Amino acid sequence: MKQGGSDAAKRAAGEAAAETVEDGAVVGLGTGSTAAHAIRAIGRRVDAGLDAVGVPTSFQSRELAREEGIPLADLDEVSVDVAIDGADEVAGGDLVKGGGAAHAREKVVDASADRFLVVADPTKEAEALSHPVPVEVLPAARSTVAERVEALGGDPDLRRAERKDGPVVTDNGNLVLDCAFGEIADPERLATALSTAPGVVEHGLFVGLADAVYVGSEDGVTVREP
Amino acid sequence: MKQGGSDAAKRAAGEAAAETVEDGAVVGLGTGSTAAHAIRAIGRRVDAGLDAVGVPTSFQSRELAREEGIPLADLDEVSVDVAIDGADEVAGGDLVKGGGAAHAREKVVDASADRFLVVADPTKEAEALSHPVPVEVLPAARSTVAERVEALGGDPDLRRAERKDGPVVTDNGNLVLDCAFGEIADPERLATALSTAPGVVEHGLFVGLADAVYVGSEDGVTVREP
Repeated sequence: MKQGGSDAAKRAAGEAAAETVEDGAVVGLGTGSTAAHAIRAIGRRVDAGLDAVGVPTSFQSRELAREEGIPLADLDEVSVDVAIDGADEVAGGDLVKGGGAAHAREKVVDASADRFLVVADPTKEAEALSHPVPVEVLPAARSTVAERVEALGGDPDLRRAERKDGPVVTDNGNLVLDCAFGEIADPERLATALSTAPGVVEHGLFVGLADAVYVGSEDGVTVREP
Repeated sequence: MKQGGSDAAKRAAGEAAAETVEDGAVVGLGTGSTAAHAIRAIGRRVDAGLDAVGVPTSFQSRELAREEGIPLADLDEVSVDVAIDGADEVAGGDLVKGGGAAHAREKVVDASADRFLVVADPTKEAEALSHPVPVEVLPAARSTVAERVEALGGDPDLRRAERKDGPVVTDNGNLVLDCAFGEIADPERLATALSTAPGVVEHGLFVGLADAVYVGSEDGVTVREP
């Protein structure tokens, strides 16, 4: 995960996206430090009377939304009007996500939304994607997917846990391979190749899903529509 | 699942495929009643001195292989020389699998094999695939994947359990949507569309993976190489 974006920049992006939530909306609640600013801002608006329902993308976002008093629902009860989520890297409208290993559920929620707003700070922006792609795999498929990733020109690395011996285990009970491909010339093609590899549950390439990218800085927010 | 193939036909197919296993081979052990005949035949050959190691595709095939005394290994220890597995429907070299909800691990093992032998009885053969496609989904993605399947022209049906209230839960902790598409004109295209749908763990379309199809009957076995 790229780090180092200032908290002020993250806050500016998250709050600007939260401002666009309309009364009566169902909002996909993203994961990570920038999305957390959006959740807190939506919580303050709910306190002030906004009628909104949240659909969390992770354990972490569910916990924060509860603390903030945002009413919650599941995807089989509602459909999402707008999702607000962060990214580990943004190039145009394409993203790499999954530094927090929540990208499977994030993609389910973000892709289902009528509008998907990405919130980021300037350190996440790039001309082309080159961040390692987190690939969630069934435990039994760890080595066969690693071979497939190598055949696609990537360098897979099993993500290890801290505060627990062994690998990171996702909220779905699976493993994560962080797969470095260098600069990704054709994200859509790589995304399809990863999705069709047997044993891949979900990968962190989000291609063509973003409707707007909010990039915060200490001076304000730039909104791009890819 | 189509039923009604005679046990003699299943046995003929399974035993003929098991006969091709060479000394020193690593064998993918399929799931279902026809593959079970292959596992039992390999077990008899191991008893008689064959040097073979099995890689099970499911809880069921692991249990049977243990009973039969076949030494077992995991996919991160060995690579599979030949896999022998059944199908719910076969058309040319394309299959629908997943009646037993084991198709994710089956596909991981079968696709990793140097050679993949399908064993079937004549009731499984069709001109074109039309069997409902089992789609394993993350629980949170049940409704969004169902919508995606409808957009692809399919009719999704959550598989319900017997001997347990509620849905079938796979060995990976996920749900299964049985998705009827009628006759599938372009299996490869549908397979890619399902694989790339967020929240789909694995679907039961096996396109272009089979190297040979063993179809048993009460009189013998026909082997096709698609």
